[in-house]
Amino acid sequence: MKKIAVGIIGFGTVGAGVAKILKKNAMLLRRRLGASIDLKRIADIDITSDRGVAVADGLLTTDASRVLDDPEINIVLELIGGIEPAKSFIMRAVANGKHVVTANKALLAEHGHEIFSAAEAKGVDVAFEASVAGGIPIIRAIQEGFSSDRVLGFFGILNGTSNYILSKMTEENADFRDVLQDAQKRGYAEADPTFDIEGIDAMHKLAILTSLAFGKKVAMNKMYTEGISKITPLDIAFARELGYKIKLLAICRGTEKEVEARVHPTLVPEDHLLSRVNESFNAIFLHGRDVGPTMFYGKGAGMLPTGSAVVADIMSLARDIVRGTSNRVSFYPPSGRAVSAINVKPMKEIRTRYYLRFAAVDRPGILSRISGILGRNQISIHSVMQKGRQNRGGQVPIFMLTHEAQESDLQKALRQIDRLAILRQKTMVIRIEDGMLSE
Amino acid sequence: MKKIAVGIIGFGTVGAGVAKILKKNAMLLRRRLGASIDLKRIADIDITSDRGVAVADGLLTTDASRVLDDPEINIVLELIGGIEPAKSFIMRAVANGKHVVTANKALLAEHGHEIFSAAEAKGVDVAFEASVAGGIPIIRAIQEGFSSDRVLGFFGILNGTSNYILSKMTEENADFRDVLQDAQKRGYAEADPTFDIEGIDAMHKLAILTSLAFGKKVAMNKMYTEGISKITPLDIAFARELGYKIKLLAICRGTEKEVEARVHPTLVPEDHLLSRVNESFNAIFLHGRDVGPTMFYGKGAGMLPTGSAVVADIMSLARDIVRGTSNRVSFYPPSGRAVSAINVKPMKEIRTRYYLRFAAVDRPGILSRISGILGRNQISIHSVMQKGRQNRGGQVPIFMLTHEAQESDLQKALRQIDRLAILRQKTMVIRIEDGMLSE
Repeated sequence: MKKIAVGIIGFGTVGAGVAKILKKNAMLLRRRLGASIDLKRIADIDITSDRGVAVADGLLTTDASRVLDDPEINIVLELIGGIEPAKSFIMRAVANGKHVVTANKALLAEHGHEIFSAAEAKGVDVAFEASVAGGIPIIRAIQEGFSSDRVLGFFGILNGTSNYILSKMTEENADFRDVLQDAQKRGYAEADPTFDIEGIDAMHKLAILTSLAFGKKVAMNKMYTEGISKITPLDIAFARELGYKIKLLAICRGTEKEVEARVHPTLVPEDHLLSRVNESFNAIFLHGRDVGPTMFYGKGAGMLPTGSAVVADIMSLARDIVRGTSNRVSFYPPSGRAVSAINVKPMKEIRTRYYLRFAAVDRPGILSRISGILGRNQISIHSVMQKGRQNRGGQVPIFMLTHEAQESDLQKALRQIDRLAILRQKTMVIRIEDGMLSE
Repeated sequence: MKKIAVGIIGFGTVGAGVAKILKKNAMLLRRRLGASIDLKRIADIDITSDRGVAVADGLLTTDASRVLDDPEINIVLELIGGIEPAKSFIMRAVANGKHVVTANKALLAEHGHEIFSAAEAKGVDVAFEASVAGGIPIIRAIQEGFSSDRVLGFFGILNGTSNYILSKMTEENADFRDVLQDAQKRGYAEADPTFDIEGIDAMHKLAILTSLAFGKKVAMNKMYTEGISKITPLDIAFARELGYKIKLLAICRGTEKEVEARVHPTLVPEDHLLSRVNESFNAIFLHGRDVGPTMFYGKGAGMLPTGSAVVADIMSLARDIVRGTSNRVSFYPPSGRAVSAINVKPMKEIRTRYYLRFAAVDRPGILSRISGILGRNQISIHSVMQKGRQNRGGQVPIFMLTHEAQESDLQKALRQIDRLAILRQKTMVIRIEDGMLSE
């Protein structure tokens, strides 16, 4: 029986999950593949910590080159994350004619083009199912399930930590900081949570999915990114009263010529499936022109869900190795031409509906001044509500939903409004997604 | 540029959808594939009706052998449905060394083993993404996305017509017959709706997914199948009061040794994602041991969603043809041994919770007689409710939820209860799924 030799670089949570799955599911994998997968070496800087999985003597090494340069190893798993040395390791593995499996979204978002081009030139594959939405096979769905269709857009809950925090804030009417601290204690959020809560992780995943769906490069620095740290229980409660949940959405819609690609907190209608995605779960609501609306839901992270996606990639590569083929599915269409970048629509040109919360001093005439400025900037008001009595600061929150308006107009209006002496805080803005292309 | 020649047998809704997609998406497909897909011939008994898609002169034929025996055709699409002549056509295409794409769930559920074995022996592939849940790439998800994992179970809304009817009954508080007639008028239900509303179509799909998930044959006649024709607005309203929706679920859970595999109306908790799947949409909630709970949602039928899945299969086969490979992923594990059948747990051994509605005459002592019989049969009552005044027949409905009980005990108790003179109709039984393996 043919043996496929695998080497892991990075023995953290995902690496340990992969080792565990390769061990406990060995029989199952062998039966499905008609070949056996042999975990030949694991490289990590730290080879003494207990990862909760027993590995054979001699498997562990601190020297990555014993994975990268071992002529017997067919597939290298890059599971260290970050840009360097991950990128150099992958490029070296590719140069050595090895297939690569990676879960590294930051690296692919930033240097995917270089990596995929090098792999294709060398006739090897770089598989990356685990890089977006852990256990959800969304990469395969786009590359193969929807290979016949044009993607019109997708809406993703792609960061488990943010979704966990927003879910808990919603359930418990709790403040962002308190929930974050609790999440950190439980290990659901990192000590430095910036990447997760400020939308950067979701933006990396959005970049990968956008490139994949439209077959073009995408410039990350053109993608608007805003996190959840400013969301308050007041916003969540008011959104709920209006029939919305607040979710951190990665939004992409458009054509091969131009897309909107942005990450920000979003009001999602209560009766939409995405608003039912709670805790640390991920989901992608994807609309294809022929296939219509679809949704994929599952765990976005974790030792076994992510490990499972990595091993599925190993299986896929192993099937090709067994049959002596490779580059079966390419990241960019195999046109032979240079891959061009897709235009990202400037944020100021976006048109959407808005939720606004004004922290105004409770004085006569205030609503007329605010609505006057909005009106002069082509923003028309859908509904407005002033709730309760003024609080200690003499403020009273005014909530407003607008009709569809242009982002540049809104920002201009807010600059004028926030200069008013009667405004005590910067106005809270949350964008609304009503349709999600589902009609 | 390489040309992949395709022939269609069966120019109905799906066939016309495929022709349409191959035409309008030709450039896109060619760019993604690096080869072109050439629709060379379409065979149907009726080649004069307008299918809403223009095809080139000479493409249409009434002679299936002009597809099956054309040495230039690489891929045959069997889109006529039913057992014969579909089966003979597929076997002949396979014998002629052609790959096959089919959307024929009844055929695969009944003769899949014979078809897949013949294809494997001949070194060709039979692709069938469109046979289950139309536009949802669930076949690929199980075969490739979860190739590393053990499926613990899945719960599917697999019949769009039934889900449409139940959704409308729920929304409009309408009778089954009225909604069915309306669905027939709108073309959402067939003139003879038996396969859809009696759960047979869902059972075929359950058989295919069960075989696939566990890598074994499954005997369809051992799978309990019950449709939705007996569900009343009263049941739907009471289920809602208790926090449930009624859905026709295809349920599978177990191990490679033994599975539960059954189709029946089911009370699904209101806050479960599956209860949010409305209209003619399909969804599969699948629980993997490592990957945890996942859900896939989309259109289960229709010209373009199903056509899109067929064309995705063409793309997948074409990718293999371009690379000179085949049999990359097999239906049953390629162990070389004979494929065994999985045990289906006899329905009488199933344990679940039950919703019961008794149509009793409104007389003192009735509840004590019913609950006495249940108690003597090891069925304990979770909650009971008698609603409103008696109706014209002097009856009053009594609703009951049980704790977990065994099906054989329940059926025995109901035989005794339904013999009581105070019972005016057969007792309504609907099984409850609370957990769906999601904890």
